[in-house]
Amino acid sequence: YEIQLARRSWISYPADTSFPIENIPFGAFLRPGSSVPHLGTAIGSFVLDLHVLAERGVALLSTGNQVFLQPTLNDFMALGRAAWREARHNIQALLSAETPFLRDNAALRSAALVAQSDVKMLLPAKIGDYTDFYASRQHATNVGIMFRGKDNALMPNWLHLPVGYHGRASSVVPSGTNIARPSGQTNADDNVAAPTFGPCKLLDFEIEMGFFVGPGNELGHPIPIGQARDHIFGMVILNDWSARDIQKWEYVPLGPFLAKNFGTTISAWVVTMDALEPFLADTPPQEPQPLPYLQETRKSHFDIAIECAIKTSDANAPHVVSRTNMRNLHWSIDQMLAHHTASGCNMSPGDLLGTGTISGTEETSFGSLLELTWRGSKPISFPTGETRKFLQDGDSVIMTAFAQGDGYRIGFGECTGKIIPTLSKY
Amino acid sequence: YEIQLARRSWISYPADTSFPIENIPFGAFLRPGSSVPHLGTAIGSFVLDLHVLAERGVALLSTGNQVFLQPTLNDFMALGRAAWREARHNIQALLSAETPFLRDNAALRSAALVAQSDVKMLLPAKIGDYTDFYASRQHATNVGIMFRGKDNALMPNWLHLPVGYHGRASSVVPSGTNIARPSGQTNADDNVAAPTFGPCKLLDFEIEMGFFVGPGNELGHPIPIGQARDHIFGMVILNDWSARDIQKWEYVPLGPFLAKNFGTTISAWVVTMDALEPFLADTPPQEPQPLPYLQETRKSHFDIAIECAIKTSDANAPHVVSRTNMRNLHWSIDQMLAHHTASGCNMSPGDLLGTGTISGTEETSFGSLLELTWRGSKPISFPTGETRKFLQDGDSVIMTAFAQGDGYRIGFGECTGKIIPTLSKY
Ligand SMILES: [Ca+2]
Ligand SMILES: [Ca+2]
Ligand SMILES: [Mg+2]
Ligand SMILES: [Mg+2]
Ligand code: NI
Repeated sequence: YEIQLARRSWISYPADTSFPIENIPFGAFLRPGSSVPHLGTAIGSFVLDLHVLAERGVALLSTGNQVFLQPTLNDFMALGRAAWREARHNIQALLSAETPFLRDNAALRSAALVAQSDVKMLLPAKIGDYTDFYASRQHATNVGIMFRGKDNALMPNWLHLPVGYHGRASSVVPSGTNIARPSGQTNADDNVAAPTFGPCKLLDFEIEMGFFVGPGNELGHPIPIGQARDHIFGMVILNDWSARDIQKWEYVPLGPFLAKNFGTTISAWVVTMDALEPFLADTPPQEPQPLPYLQETRKSHFDIAIECAIKTSDANAPHVVSRTNMRNLHWSIDQMLAHHTASGCNMSPGDLLGTGTISGTEETSFGSLLELTWRGSKPISFPTGETRKFLQDGDSVIMTAFAQGDGYRIGFGECTGKIIPTLSKY
Repeated sequence: YEIQLARRSWISYPADTSFPIENIPFGAFLRPGSSVPHLGTAIGSFVLDLHVLAERGVALLSTGNQVFLQPTLNDFMALGRAAWREARHNIQALLSAETPFLRDNAALRSAALVAQSDVKMLLPAKIGDYTDFYASRQHATNVGIMFRGKDNALMPNWLHLPVGYHGRASSVVPSGTNIARPSGQTNADDNVAAPTFGPCKLLDFEIEMGFFVGPGNELGHPIPIGQARDHIFGMVILNDWSARDIQKWEYVPLGPFLAKNFGTTISAWVVTMDALEPFLADTPPQEPQPLPYLQETRKSHFDIAIECAIKTSDANAPHVVSRTNMRNLHWSIDQMLAHHTASGCNMSPGDLLGTGTISGTEETSFGSLLELTWRGSKPISFPTGETRKFLQDGDSVIMTAFAQGDGYRIGFGECTGKIIPTLSKY
């Protein structure tokens, strides 16, 4: 059912492609046989190599093409919204059905277009700092009920501020990277002081969205909420792999540490805020009213459908285990960024922020196995006859996301990782 | 009482200098009027400019001088212990009284030596990730008593693992950088759901030591404790500025966030592990016995005296408020690094790890105002007649540290920061 959208792009793609001309996400990749990272955009099933275009003098930005010759998007991210918009419009013009420049230049076309299946995607940015929030009310409530009971589910601060914590930037990896089962200290019963060390037994995923910071701020100078959007370059899908047994024993009083720092997977294409603007959604009721520094004057939630599937090593196909939506967040990404910097904390281009696990109110829309299997008490059944409480070696977790427009989709591609046995030699 | 140690270096310095020929710390700095970072070492009251020596072909490393032409120490840190040792020995030889090469070359000497008072020190490395531990038993006990009572002071996990959390790398600043009072959300009484937003009222310091990672490890491959030392480049003094009122309200359940991310100050000269080797000290009793992955086979604690003084804006001189020692740590830096990577977490050259607040058993050796004033209940009196429960605008906090050798000191210089009024425009 390949539909030629001749009216839009001279590249043909199906109507439900993640990467129509309306998208124009940005990413970094290796061409076949090359070890030099190039920047590019995705169009249908192709990568358009912006490095090649920049090298050949195709004007992508009036301020010069230098940022597209870098190995990561950081310099481009630093330029700000006007530059992002200009580059996106120029690329859309190049790809537009009416523009002969690239369409009719076979040599340049063959140099600049590569099949997505032939490239290796890299991290889009050098991530200076990574922060993870905890912004879905249903997720915080579910976890709270499991650990503290129904009456004390939400901590007293939760409705007043977007709770967040600093994560590990070094172990953020692009989709497709295998994740070795972490080892760590666990204590099955906190009352018995006899912890043990070994491979995690309760390995989980967390369905999140991530967003990249564009221009940063100076230390001491917060980003006001009304300006937050201008500091956000774009979004990715984010899987915050979590070792529940390690987390339970280690996390008091300073928060998760080894339970999270063995890997965080992101989808490789960063979808710009301009592409996502049409999918702005109303803010959910925020009661009590947030303090002024967190009060929004415009829409800042997003209607983005997210699906998570698991493919066991025995299965031929992934099995969907959750369908959720970014609208299930209580706090918006603008609120997260404003809060993060309220102390004066400085952000830099390429910093990554995660929303926290996105759980809806339906049991089928929970964002982690911890919630989906209710701490392992309700195992998930697979078409193969297998069941899962938590992840087994060989399981692949595949997250996809898209915003549905009128006749087109803004997709994020995949955020995938396969669990492999622990590599540690203990 | 300037003593010419002619037998050691042709540069004269007092016997209690922080930077004798036995030290040879590494750092980055700007020469007067320059904006190009150079790497150097400190000798007496001078900086020896390694960039200048490298450029002029003075062989500092058999593998080449390229690492000394970089703006930060990261590439040098990545080389590993044999290279660090070789460079240190070559520099010691250059500075030795018996070596005429630099001593008798007035032109080179004047190009390569700069007064420390004339340079601006920078961060020694680009810090990819920063982690803070919580490894002093007295500190954890003090905080535990204040917040949970004497019987539940230490959390059940504390004696089993070095508790740590990921910090904010972007806001680590070199000694001498002003720290703007952070703003944030606070709630005087957790039971009343009426938090407010404004400048921190309970601003504190934390006396810590920091250590820089040298060669890193691949994701999934832990650093065994027996190899941990080879991955540690050297140490600095670290002040983990802390906003106690913000911390109290925000930190459940995911740990400190805005309370810590507005600034962390480190001393600018990184003292190498080779220089500190003579000051290895016995491990304190670790009961219960740590699990095998944390068991040490050699000394890995350090006898380093640390002093903290406050200079109020009214005072002519700093007033010492705490004298502690790195021996007061329960967990060693080797144990911290082994634990950090036990999950498979990957470290990179230039990553910074903090030990956590170093409190001794004496009240005068506590490592934070929270403890020294026992939550503000015992204000500190100053010679000016002023008192302090927590830090006021205009206060400078000055930390110094040294290891005392036989006739020489291995010093760290200063870790200083002055509190300035909040810059945020709320
Ligand atoms: Ca998470
Ligand atoms: Ca600390
Ligand atoms: Mg993670
Ligand atoms: Mg800090
Ligand atoms: Ni130069």
